[in-house]
Amino acid sequence: MTGDGATTTRRTRETAQSLAAKQREISISEFFTKNRHLLGFDNPQKALLTTVKEAVDNALDACEEAGILPELRISIQEITEERFRVRVEDNGPGIVRPQIPKIFGQLLYGSKFHTLKSQRGQQGLGISAAGMYGQLTTGKPVSIISKTGKRSPAHAFEIRIDTRKNAPEPVSDRIVEWDAEHGTIVEIELEGSYKKGRRSVDDYVEQTALANPHAEITYRSPKGEEIRFERVTNELPKEALEIKPHPYGVELGSLMKMLKDTKARNLRSFLQQDFSRVSAKVADEICSRAAVPAGRNPHQISPAEAERLHKTIPHVKIMAPPTNCLSPIGEALIFKGLAARVKADFVTSATRPPAVYRGMPFQVEVGLAYGGDLPAEELVEVYRFANRVPLQYQQSACAITKSAVTTDWRNYGLSQSKGAPPAGPMVLFVHVNSVWVPFTSESKEAIAHYPEIVKELRLALQECGRRLGNFLSRRRRVADEMKKRSYIEKYIPLIGEALQDILSLTDRQRDQTISNLKDVLEKSRRM
Amino acid sequence: MTGDGATTTRRTRETAQSLAAKQREISISEFFTKNRHLLGFDNPQKALLTTVKEAVDNALDACEEAGILPELRISIQEITEERFRVRVEDNGPGIVRPQIPKIFGQLLYGSKFHTLKSQRGQQGLGISAAGMYGQLTTGKPVSIISKTGKRSPAHAFEIRIDTRKNAPEPVSDRIVEWDAEHGTIVEIELEGSYKKGRRSVDDYVEQTALANPHAEITYRSPKGEEIRFERVTNELPKEALEIKPHPYGVELGSLMKMLKDTKARNLRSFLQQDFSRVSAKVADEICSRAAVPAGRNPHQISPAEAERLHKTIPHVKIMAPPTNCLSPIGEALIFKGLAARVKADFVTSATRPPAVYRGMPFQVEVGLAYGGDLPAEELVEVYRFANRVPLQYQQSACAITKSAVTTDWRNYGLSQSKGAPPAGPMVLFVHVNSVWVPFTSESKEAIAHYPEIVKELRLALQECGRRLGNFLSRRRRVADEMKKRSYIEKYIPLIGEALQDILSLTDRQRDQTISNLKDVLEKSRRM
Repeated sequence: MTGDGATTTRRTRETAQSLAAKQREISISEFFTKNRHLLGFDNPQKALLTTVKEAVDNALDACEEAGILPELRISIQEITEERFRVRVEDNGPGIVRPQIPKIFGQLLYGSKFHTLKSQRGQQGLGISAAGMYGQLTTGKPVSIISKTGKRSPAHAFEIRIDTRKNAPEPVSDRIVEWDAEHGTIVEIELEGSYKKGRRSVDDYVEQTALANPHAEITYRSPKGEEIRFERVTNELPKEALEIKPHPYGVELGSLMKMLKDTKARNLRSFLQQDFSRVSAKVADEICSRAAVPAGRNPHQISPAEAERLHKTIPHVKIMAPPTNCLSPIGEALIFKGLAARVKADFVTSATRPPAVYRGMPFQVEVGLAYGGDLPAEELVEVYRFANRVPLQYQQSACAITKSAVTTDWRNYGLSQSKGAPPAGPMVLFVHVNSVWVPFTSESKEAIAHYPEIVKELRLALQECGRRLGNFLSRRRRVADEMKKRSYIEKYIPLIGEALQDILSLTDRQRDQTISNLKDVLEKSRRM
Repeated sequence: MTGDGATTTRRTRETAQSLAAKQREISISEFFTKNRHLLGFDNPQKALLTTVKEAVDNALDACEEAGILPELRISIQEITEERFRVRVEDNGPGIVRPQIPKIFGQLLYGSKFHTLKSQRGQQGLGISAAGMYGQLTTGKPVSIISKTGKRSPAHAFEIRIDTRKNAPEPVSDRIVEWDAEHGTIVEIELEGSYKKGRRSVDDYVEQTALANPHAEITYRSPKGEEIRFERVTNELPKEALEIKPHPYGVELGSLMKMLKDTKARNLRSFLQQDFSRVSAKVADEICSRAAVPAGRNPHQISPAEAERLHKTIPHVKIMAPPTNCLSPIGEALIFKGLAARVKADFVTSATRPPAVYRGMPFQVEVGLAYGGDLPAEELVEVYRFANRVPLQYQQSACAITKSAVTTDWRNYGLSQSKGAPPAGPMVLFVHVNSVWVPFTSESKEAIAHYPEIVKELRLALQECGRRLGNFLSRRRRVADEMKKRSYIEKYIPLIGEALQDILSLTDRQRDQTISNLKDVLEKSRRM
């Protein structure tokens, strides 16, 4: 018993036994209620944005997974200055009735966490956290209507979250009339604050339209303005396929867990089936180099053997992971989108070939619009996107910002101060697409500085920068030429008239001389 | 069924049904395995530090809760350059056998999350996350020995975490001999990297000793050096008491949940019992202003009534929360600790009175050491602490750094560039103590910028700054005086001898004159 040792114990307050009585499980909902800033609910303005964002992410993901061209209606109703009702309607596949409560009323529940492919959602946290925040600040449940097909009924739920259990508590569950064929409507009432301008919901919706040229979005702001973003293409994005982990990315503990969980009957087929890019030959090479027989039962591999396998893998040459798990927007559509939404003199876009960090495929795309209506005197705006989702906060912590700032734009004819983005009438659109975007926090606001990602970002930015440089120097040349040409056009006739006087030319001879002179000068100027 | 609408559906990949089949629960362990950078395991160097830190936090908390003066032995064994075995032994109350697996093998399990009092741990995440990281990178289980008293056996466990279930999987469970009276030993093997210097484990241990002057710490570094930090006091910190939430901090959703969960039989006693600082009079005032009868059953309060109560609370005058939930180090001990560990010419410390943010009591303390052996030419080092735990990363995101940088130290005789800490031979020790420290991430590396906290920080810094300013100007004055005095001592005898020559004084007369002159000059200098 504690308290026996008089020398060390001065006051006995708690004992091992009394402390044990206090220990208990903390539900993830309780955890994120107390730490809600981690999920992007630190202040009312951000809470409003995050709520819209989570609902829109889910809607777009659902449509794409089902191969449906998305049609979204986003509306924000201002109830008081501090209270809003967010409503997002989609034409997605809908959600089957038994899943509705869990998806909206349980944190860490979802289909995407264990899937290695490019998607907006990753964690199964967002929409239920938004609902929980609404409930916390207004006491109102989340309401959902969902319909899975023409002949299916539309189910309407109102759901609370029991934060102690992290479990949904349906308040009501009815069948309602809804004339849509299929889709989902989510409504969340929350304490928030609406401001126009940078980082506003308006901005977010506009950038979402830009990164999702296949989506049609109608947006009704709290002030009642309605904006419609027409789709720029009728093509759905290329379907992203799920992949298996690549051996180069695996950690010892994960390898041991995979060995334990596998259904494969020997080590060779385990390596082939549970990883991507491992052929029978590669599997055999790993086994023989690690001195573990390829025919061994994976469940009977000892920790020491697993460690030998793990140490061997980096020394065996294995093909880079497949990249059909990615879903880039594509150069053509980035170009088209920018051209449609920004009035600019010059637009370009570049999609890099896929690359890999920590065994995870990723791909970088950059769009650039210059001139036109863009403000000439300000620092360039950088629109950041991760898996087509606009990122609006923590820009200084983000690898995208870092890459844009450390690119030397003076090489391409722009002015730039050290440590700042360039200045000029320009917008940058930067998209990182990956099966697992390494965000710096759960609120998914900034991308971590993996050197491989920063490198690809810089290459893509430089590519667009070079093209802009060419455009700008061509434009300068043309402007010079126009100036010279205007001199010729202005002075040659005067010279012609002077020559006519001096040499007593006829009008025809004078015109002929003028024309000859023009030709000669034009030719010499071209050389 | 999805797919009916030929116009919207172009390719059918997933349906509501097939998507439903993929939905599943994500365990918190899986979540933090994938997102382990959120808990401070982003790179090997930080992983080593975080592991030591989590084990030490737990050890110190346990000792203090049980009223035991802590004796810690921290050792880090280097197995290879990339692999370490961390061992932390304490003389705390020990852990009863059935609790051991859960505390070390289940994330979000603990005694502190629901308790409003000043403690190092808050979340029930740290030590199990460290074990999980060790398991992931080395495949090795966590090992624990714990003993709760002289006559109790010592239990030795080896524990793995089943990440899919977020549940402990004991590998072994034995009784062993351990001659300690009570205490706990934790050992975790992990991939890590050890570097000396700033942000090193060595630094962390030294700062921990500074902020815990009642603890005796022995530290054995990976290189085999052993350092012993003796305790500076035999007094345990003042016991922090648990408090109830203050009404000013409550959110509508929480209020509704509390109304539902309470055991109180009427609204008046609910308000009195479940909140701090609510007297019968205050409870009645809230009820009558909100037009909800004080005798009503709390379980039958409607959402509209709850909302009226919530809106009323801020308009009723309620005493600030009690502050015996805090556990400051105290001016005297900060002073003593700094004086013992830093060779300086001037040391001062200030503990502010408790203050409140979002209904949470907190208290700021600052220590300052100047001169002596400290490097004169460099920027001042700021040691940051939250509930006696040193913070080593994300300093630029931290309210402490911000406050130190925005204080104008030139007022106190130091040089300082804009946006930087002052320069000079100085160390700042800044401690924020609170029942709930608002960290910017789960890895608990930086304190969020709450205006109330920043204000208190600046006041404490200014107080120490003013005292430093006085010291420095006094020192300058003394230096001037010494200089003048040395002139007097140097020249007066010469004048005496000259006078002796001129006035033909005897030696006695000469000495008398010198003595008189000294007195006169001394007096005039003093005026």
